[in-house]
Amino acid sequence: MTNNINLPLCGIIPPIVTPLLDCDTLDHTGLERLIEHILEGGVQGIFVLGTTGEAQSLSYRLRYELIENVCKLVAGRVPVLVGITDTAFIESLHLADKAAKHGATTVVLAPPYYFPAGQPELLEYLKHIIPQLPLPVFLYNMPSHTKLVFEPETVRSALTLPGVIGLKDSSANMTYFQLIRNMTLDLPHFSLLMGPDNLLAEAVMFGAHGGVCGGANLFPKIYVELFKAAQDRQIDRMMELHQLVMGIVLNIFEIGKYSSGFIKGIKCALSIMGICSDFMAEPFHRFRKDERERIHTYLEKCNLSDEINTILKK
Amino acid sequence: MTNNINLPLCGIIPPIVTPLLDCDTLDHTGLERLIEHILEGGVQGIFVLGTTGEAQSLSYRLRYELIENVCKLVAGRVPVLVGITDTAFIESLHLADKAAKHGATTVVLAPPYYFPAGQPELLEYLKHIIPQLPLPVFLYNMPSHTKLVFEPETVRSALTLPGVIGLKDSSANMTYFQLIRNMTLDLPHFSLLMGPDNLLAEAVMFGAHGGVCGGANLFPKIYVELFKAAQDRQIDRMMELHQLVMGIVLNIFEIGKYSSGFIKGIKCALSIMGICSDFMAEPFHRFRKDERERIHTYLEKCNLSDEINTILKK
Amino acid sequence: MTNNINLPLCGIIPPIVTPLLDCDTLDHTGLERLIEHILEGGVQGIFVLGTTGEAQSLSYRLRYELIENVCKLVAGRVPVLVGITDTAFIESLHLADKAAKHGATTVVLAPPYYFPAGQPELLEYLKHIIPQLPLPVFLYNMPSHTKLVFEPETVRSALTLPGVIGLKDSSANMTYFQLIRNMTLDLPHFSLLMGPDNLLAEAVMFGAHGGVCGGANLFPKIYVELFKAAQDRQIDRMMELHQLVMGIVLNIFEIGKYSSGFIKGIKCALSIMGICSDFMAEPFHRFRKDERERIHTYLEKCNLSDEINTILKK
Amino acid sequence: MTNNINLPLCGIIPPIVTPLLDCDTLDHTGLERLIEHILEGGVQGIFVLGTTGEAQSLSYRLRYELIENVCKLVAGRVPVLVGITDTAFIESLHLADKAAKHGATTVVLAPPYYFPAGQPELLEYLKHIIPQLPLPVFLYNMPSHTKLVFEPETVRSALTLPGVIGLKDSSANMTYFQLIRNMTLDLPHFSLLMGPDNLLAEAVMFGAHGGVCGGANLFPKIYVELFKAAQDRQIDRMMELHQLVMGIVLNIFEIGKYSSGFIKGIKCALSIMGICSDFMAEPFHRFRKDERERIHTYLEKCNLSDEINTILKK
Repeated sequence: MTNNINLPLCGIIPPIVTPLLDCDTLDHTGLERLIEHILEGGVQGIFVLGTTGEAQSLSYRLRYELIENVCKLVAGRVPVLVGITDTAFIESLHLADKAAKHGATTVVLAPPYYFPAGQPELLEYLKHIIPQLPLPVFLYNMPSHTKLVFEPETVRSALTLPGVIGLKDSSANMTYFQLIRNMTLDLPHFSLLMGPDNLLAEAVMFGAHGGVCGGANLFPKIYVELFKAAQDRQIDRMMELHQLVMGIVLNIFEIGKYSSGFIKGIKCALSIMGICSDFMAEPFHRFRKDERERIHTYLEKCNLSDEINTILKK
Repeated sequence: MTNNINLPLCGIIPPIVTPLLDCDTLDHTGLERLIEHILEGGVQGIFVLGTTGEAQSLSYRLRYELIENVCKLVAGRVPVLVGITDTAFIESLHLADKAAKHGATTVVLAPPYYFPAGQPELLEYLKHIIPQLPLPVFLYNMPSHTKLVFEPETVRSALTLPGVIGLKDSSANMTYFQLIRNMTLDLPHFSLLMGPDNLLAEAVMFGAHGGVCGGANLFPKIYVELFKAAQDRQIDRMMELHQLVMGIVLNIFEIGKYSSGFIKGIKCALSIMGICSDFMAEPFHRFRKDERERIHTYLEKCNLSDEINTILKK
Repeated sequence: MTNNINLPLCGIIPPIVTPLLDCDTLDHTGLERLIEHILEGGVQGIFVLGTTGEAQSLSYRLRYELIENVCKLVAGRVPVLVGITDTAFIESLHLADKAAKHGATTVVLAPPYYFPAGQPELLEYLKHIIPQLPLPVFLYNMPSHTKLVFEPETVRSALTLPGVIGLKDSSANMTYFQLIRNMTLDLPHFSLLMGPDNLLAEAVMFGAHGGVCGGANLFPKIYVELFKAAQDRQIDRMMELHQLVMGIVLNIFEIGKYSSGFIKGIKCALSIMGICSDFMAEPFHRFRKDERERIHTYLEKCNLSDEINTILKK
Repeated sequence: MTNNINLPLCGIIPPIVTPLLDCDTLDHTGLERLIEHILEGGVQGIFVLGTTGEAQSLSYRLRYELIENVCKLVAGRVPVLVGITDTAFIESLHLADKAAKHGATTVVLAPPYYFPAGQPELLEYLKHIIPQLPLPVFLYNMPSHTKLVFEPETVRSALTLPGVIGLKDSSANMTYFQLIRNMTLDLPHFSLLMGPDNLLAEAVMFGAHGGVCGGANLFPKIYVELFKAAQDRQIDRMMELHQLVMGIVLNIFEIGKYSSGFIKGIKCALSIMGICSDFMAEPFHRFRKDERERIHTYLEKCNLSDEINTILKK
């Protein structure tokens, strides 16, 4: 079932936000603009229904609608990865079936996140669910939200399950990343993707195949170029681009008081850029005037400056 | 909307397990036997779709089926409380609507549990969802699973929202309980219920209105009598019954290696008692032979001994 | 070596604050007044160099001076318990030697708190240090500060070591307390003491032998009477006294923003009461004007009211 | 007071283990061999009384003896950094005075680690202690052991205090590292050092001035060469050396079951290499036969292979 994908999956695969008009209505126009904006940046894939996409906060009806729409809009131009993480086994299967039906490329699965499972319980779960999935699967390590890590020994066992084609590590824990990297050095088709934007450059330097970076919703080209620079070991260029990413992280992601701030910041910036609405699904709410103005000021500074273009045109 | 319930809600309200034949099939016969078994014990309510009920692991279809069936089977003999905790606002509303439609008494709401929210975000969420609920609501403090506590100041604000009729505290944190107890001393209709079985006696002594104890699936009468003894300050009797509960906790709940052990233990014991299946929803799996035999031995000892009956008949 | 103590140790054993003139100077007059104030309240022991005593923040010279002075001032009127918790094995032995030399009754030992030890490592440590101690020992479970719990199975093994005469549980975890209580029911000389003030009443009801409550620095008689009421199962009186303790907790301990607030609050109140200085050892600093005024107001209200005296004189 | 050091401090500064004959006796011969072994590797400094040095587990007498001996043995060949972290303000000052008296270069200070302090309390502590230190100071971020992080805003304020010349980050959190790096870009004399061995290469690539890596006790030359390769952006060589370091981490540090394993592993390997004793201070104990044999096998493989020498001689 993995025969028509080029493995390992490489490059920048933005975890797209879910543009919303209200708490259960998709912003269709915004979604279309967002996808075109991202694809113009030269990304290598699209990840829908991840944490940045507020998947867990959306009704299932809306999740299905989103899968269908994204697959249609992308129309095979790049692979589509679909998050199917759920506390209920059956709902994960339903999501995977929708993904397969609409032509998605692969599914992405984090541990179930309500009941604290032991690692043997988690492994048994993987052994039961993975054979029932109609698409190949990325494991999704996201302990800040699932409160459960795919521990290295669990990953080692899961690597032997047919259909496991990669791991997306959003732990921000480079020690973990290094362990998994060393564990998978001999697997030529296995893809290791880095989550946090600020760790993309170093992860790629040390063997990551790409990144699933929230900021690539906003400035996909920067991330695509950063990935290339790191891969090609153009260190000076990589450092310049890395500093641009640090600017995005510090000025857009770190604005809010709570951990939800990075999604609020991305949606706020997309709204200022005229791409889509900044409506947030409960339990969150869009940034208010103060934060919006700070982001506005930062974005204006970026546009006015030739800095980005200069670097990108090099 | 709270006019036909006797407030505050008092007494033992078992959080029922969800009897399953397989991962998406309800054990109807088992459910009926379980409800009759519990009601014969003299309980004052039934709580469905709580943590003990593995709510988060069940498909929504099954959750709806369960709500409908429990309401029918209970048939107004005691109040039915329905868990509507969800990461998706809309899905919580759907669950609440089903509960209202089938005649449940009240809904029970823990914080959304994937995204780590700040307390002001959580309070705003409560302010948005509670007015949309068709039934009165219990807050459900369950930090071991939601990773988010209803902090005392958030509870204080939530107490002013119409429809909030109680709080179920499953934190096992008596300091927290004491704070909430002191905060609600002047609210004659507010009900404070204790979660963990081993803390029932002391909580009732210090002002709890009742308990939502998993062991009451198995031995409802013990809990009902313990509640009465604590309420009536029959201390010797209370201590005897408390020791029986400690026996249940130590010999049935604490068998497994992981935190899922208490549900596995209850389902295993119910299966041995011939009440319902011990099938567990993913990511968990029923106890294997060793644990089952240990519980069997304990239950036989209980049945053979006249101890329980002697105390209960006093 | 335990032959001249009445076991189990029972009653109220206040963990005294360390009155300081500056960061390395003992407030001798304050210490004397504090000890007389506490002993007048009818307490059954004095615990020096606990968490409330800021032990870890004091120089060793000062700790030795304090041990010597407290033993002299108490002069055998009640048992003196000395905290010897340290990250360095040898320093714990030195503290124990000073305690024995000056006539203390027993030492109190929490886990070493810098290196995160596994439970088998912790048990081995206990097996090595306890035989070298010149006095009997209380285990001191204090996970909020040591970040390491004496897990129930470790306690079970430690109970077999000669010289272990009790456990002081400051975890505020009544589930833990219940487990240890059940584990030690058959040990007539073993003393289980409760830490947090707000849990004293229920702990004693359920088998604790006494309490090591910070508020007993201020109002020892209230705690002594509460202990008696709980022990004698005078429930109405117990509840009245428990509410007084809750008042102390809410109005003196919970004033500050950080977890150090309870020590700052006790020292501030002692200073207002004219007993000793409120100087705090680094890294903490005394309450400023606002908090001091709030405590002052509360204490005045207490003094003016006849409530306490009425209850205490009953 | 910082005028005769070359700032920023750069390069590999091994955190030396403390060779012990028993729990309070320094292994003098071992210490001398260890220091000569490390200095032969070309390191740029020596850090004594860090976590790897088991500082918190040693008596003060021994800590003083160690400071004196290390300073004498190093005899000015490289800077000596002395850990003065303590829960007691006065004891930190005593340690700093010994360091200054014996000619150490700088002191290293992590947050006090028993009482959980708030960040404003921690900042006030820094403002009080730093002016009293006779030597310049590195902040030491080590949250896994102190349970208290120097949060970025606290670091920002601390940077303005005279005498603060660097930060050693042992958090293994590259997001934190990136934040601090961006905060100190404009401070030409400020030194940012990386703790964990496996993050040395990427940290130096992204601006760290050096590393305080435990494995440099064993193979100082590998770390020195890795540092140079990363600094000189010889990426292929850096990756080869990084893989050697990963081998050390996986085969020596990750052997034990508990977090103490990395110190046990280093001491065990040093003992096999004939450099010093593997005696561990309480609460830890040396590796037993099994682990020792695994490390032995690994070290033999290293020696037999020409791999290391080939790379190092390039």
